[in-house]
Amino acid sequence: REFRPMPYRPPSLPRVRDIMTESVVTASPDESIEDVARRLIEKEINHIPVVDEEGRIVGIVTSWDIAAAVAEGKRRLKDIMTEDVITIRPHESVDEALRRMDRHNISCLPVVDGENRVVGIVTRTDITEVLRRRG
Amino acid sequence: REFRPMPYRPPSLPRVRDIMTESVVTASPDESIEDVARRLIEKEINHIPVVDEEGRIVGIVTSWDIAAAVAEGKRRLKDIMTEDVITIRPHESVDEALRRMDRHNISCLPVVDGENRVVGIVTRTDITEVLRRRG
Ligand SMILES: C[S@@+](CC[C@H](N)C(=O)[O-])C[C@H]1O[C@@H](n2cnc3c(N)ncnc32)[C@H](O)[C@@H]1O
Repeated sequence: REFRPMPYRPPSLPRVRDIMTESVVTASPDESIEDVARRLIEKEINHIPVVDEEGRIVGIVTSWDIAAAVAEGKRRLKDIMTEDVITIRPHESVDEALRRMDRHNISCLPVVDGENRVVGIVTRTDITEVLRRRG
Repeated sequence: REFRPMPYRPPSLPRVRDIMTESVVTASPDESIEDVARRLIEKEINHIPVVDEEGRIVGIVTSWDIAAAVAEGKRRLKDIMTEDVITIRPHESVDEALRRMDRHNISCLPVVDGENRVVGIVTRTDITEVLRRRG
């Protein structure tokens, strides 16, 4: 057999799917702020995507939003959750994920598929792991 | 004059003092949870060191702790603030700062001097800036 050298391919940038968490803790829009706060504490996380019955993303709630509820006396989840969620796709690069976080001054991106269903989540903490090993 | 070649010094790792924020937003132990929540929202930050009259660190409060207050119905700042604060010194390296954050699952380190007074603050967001440029 004729030996053909492997074409040189630059080390491909790590993809979001290589580092994302797939078991995502979520909430539904009709839950209370207390429910969501308890889940944040129990799981020691700062971000919870809000999804509809089909698992499609309809918002995101963070510990910062809960602080806003306390600061401004808001009562319902809908009043504090962000609905215009910045997301990313599994095949996009980790570098793009970091750029997108910096552009929007956020520390987490829900990972969605073609139908906007949540299939994972990636945080700034996950990315610092990858970058530290690269340093 | 005799020319002596510069001794080779590896590119020094960036120090915490090179990237820390020096104008630190702080709170005092007798303030209310609502005061602290409002300050988090107003300044768009997630972490507030708690200091005594001499500016020495006595605790740290984050939006996550405010969520804990909501989840567990806690009333006073003292009930939710973390008193055993993990800190770092200005001369320590950025890599050490990141290792320390990862070890304790936290995203922020108050920077203190020899008398435990707060002289700055460094967050995971600050560090990702440095690491990205290095990538
Ligand atoms: C354990 S983390 C969990 C949330 C998430 N993993 C994160 O990185 O923020 C949240 C807790 O860490 C505490 N914390 C934050 N920075 C700290 C520091 N420099 N030293 C000690 N505790 C800190 C907060 O007070 C809060 O109770």
